[in-house]
Amino acid sequence: MRYVVIMAGGSGTRLWPLSRKGTPKQLLKLIDGTSLLRLAFERAARVVPAERVIVVTGAAYLDDVRADLPEVAEQNLLGEPEGRDSLNAVAWPAAVLSHRDPDAVVAHLTADQLIDPVETFVESLEEAFAVAEADPGALVTLGVVPTSAHTGYGYLHRGAPVPGFPTACAVQEFKEKPDAATAADYLASGQYWWNAGMFVWRARTFLEQLAALEPATHAAVLDLAERPEALGEIFPALRKTSVDFAIMEPVSQGRAPGHVLAVALPVRWRDVGGFASLAEVLDGDADGNVIEGLAVLNDAHGNLVISTDPDHLVGLSGVSGMVVVHTADATLVTTLADAEGIKALVGQVAEAVGARYV
Amino acid sequence: MRYVVIMAGGSGTRLWPLSRKGTPKQLLKLIDGTSLLRLAFERAARVVPAERVIVVTGAAYLDDVRADLPEVAEQNLLGEPEGRDSLNAVAWPAAVLSHRDPDAVVAHLTADQLIDPVETFVESLEEAFAVAEADPGALVTLGVVPTSAHTGYGYLHRGAPVPGFPTACAVQEFKEKPDAATAADYLASGQYWWNAGMFVWRARTFLEQLAALEPATHAAVLDLAERPEALGEIFPALRKTSVDFAIMEPVSQGRAPGHVLAVALPVRWRDVGGFASLAEVLDGDADGNVIEGLAVLNDAHGNLVISTDPDHLVGLSGVSGMVVVHTADATLVTTLADAEGIKALVGQVAEAVGARYV
Repeated sequence: MRYVVIMAGGSGTRLWPLSRKGTPKQLLKLIDGTSLLRLAFERAARVVPAERVIVVTGAAYLDDVRADLPEVAEQNLLGEPEGRDSLNAVAWPAAVLSHRDPDAVVAHLTADQLIDPVETFVESLEEAFAVAEADPGALVTLGVVPTSAHTGYGYLHRGAPVPGFPTACAVQEFKEKPDAATAADYLASGQYWWNAGMFVWRARTFLEQLAALEPATHAAVLDLAERPEALGEIFPALRKTSVDFAIMEPVSQGRAPGHVLAVALPVRWRDVGGFASLAEVLDGDADGNVIEGLAVLNDAHGNLVISTDPDHLVGLSGVSGMVVVHTADATLVTTLADAEGIKALVGQVAEAVGARYV
Repeated sequence: MRYVVIMAGGSGTRLWPLSRKGTPKQLLKLIDGTSLLRLAFERAARVVPAERVIVVTGAAYLDDVRADLPEVAEQNLLGEPEGRDSLNAVAWPAAVLSHRDPDAVVAHLTADQLIDPVETFVESLEEAFAVAEADPGALVTLGVVPTSAHTGYGYLHRGAPVPGFPTACAVQEFKEKPDAATAADYLASGQYWWNAGMFVWRARTFLEQLAALEPATHAAVLDLAERPEALGEIFPALRKTSVDFAIMEPVSQGRAPGHVLAVALPVRWRDVGGFASLAEVLDGDADGNVIEGLAVLNDAHGNLVISTDPDHLVGLSGVSGMVVVHTADATLVTTLADAEGIKALVGQVAEAVGARYV
């Protein structure tokens, strides 16, 4: 049977003070009061029944996930005691689902992006499931059809088409984030897709690759699937690495049995990893101000204002291109251009006034 | 006997959201935790005993004044039911003190400015008291010796010196706020002082002028001095006008008996009417940031940050010349250059979200 695993881990420094260690960005109700996690769940629930949607997140976020996704059964919530990178966020649920259903075919999906149209996403995901079901040796990755020469994503170099499917093809090579000239070449060639970090495969197939490439992790997650009570003992010992580095790249290079295929995801794919991208996906007013919450602006243009306290007023006067974010215990003032500065600021906050604010 | 009346009325739009209808700027603990009112009281108490310091303020601010100035006796707190401009803030306490002490000599002082050195202020005030005691017909005004061609103050055109006093002189004319060229001429001539809006006179003398020029107000404040319980009935009927317009200018023009003299106030005289001037009087750090409260700044220069909630963190990144003010129910983000915008913003706040925030 088909399953969807939504990966919703990580803390989001770049959206501080909205996102904290206690509130990863996927849980923030950023999009008209809806979280990215909820949007990802609703996309998944168009392809599989809700009872076959699994969420893997940080243990600390489980209560928030339960509140946001009441449809997800308790046994389908996997809480990582600590972040151990993407390989483990993939391998643990793969082992759990394989233990429950040896024939499980699993899509591992991210929740970081705003995706539209959803209908197109659903078609791509169904094609990827069909490819994985038809080809027992395939690791299928979703490749976003690029709309710009983006330097913030890794790329997939497409190979030969897979007969019988509208978009499926081989993957010749995974490419790291390119420089601007290389990204422009990739875009012009039409031979590259963005690596979306979303995968579809038979759980059994993935676990075979894992056994070959990361035998210790393989043994550990199988153990964990049988003894969930040993989570606190097993999980922290897992090797911290990414699924691309540990599995996808070696398999694509022939360093392990099996093969990597890709299916096209021709959607509008917008990262909301920082305030500038958040401002782009939200609707602005006539002055180009994006306002979420109680705010009054005078002679102000192109600002992003977010206030999470409905009784707290934020007033701006005579400013442009600013980011103002007010939460119960912290307020950020920066510019839309200074996305990188927030990370340094949060580091200073942790050092100067302590961990409670980060 | 000598008395000091401190005028601490008015609401301070230009320091919103620190100052509100419920908190005029003189009551804000802006200067290293001390209010301008408290500083004015401490200056006054160097010249007269604390029991002869009177405070006239808005009735709504009386509790805050009591808390800030526990030394001031209840009978010396005059709470105006509504703001009726400076004539009434002067005339009411003059009538009250004249009623208590027919020979009262009264200094009416403002609390809006930061003044140093205090010793010089004390000397000027004592000279002004001595002039008023020596010359029964004199209305004595304090003239700040200009240190710049300021266009934000009215000016006094100095006349003949008064023999026997170090700085006292006649006032030829009151001048409105000048344009820049005129202010430069005034400064170069050495013949002009800033009109500080601070006055010293015998209460009886002032009341005689008042009787001649504003007979209705004169009758009303005498009535009020005898029947304090009629405050709510009498006060709102008073004509709203300034002491300069109603008394000082007509007397200086010979349109009423008596005469206007001035005494030099050669102090550093800094208005803290807005955030730019507040930033100037407070000490900045090595990056030119003035920070009051819990704040962390990354790559930020020349900003003013004020947070009144000790548990709320304000973070700035990559910004310069900003004003960020966080209070329990409202946050302001503007620039040091946009002082005028705040008034418009507060007007919009009142209209858009209601009076509770202004």
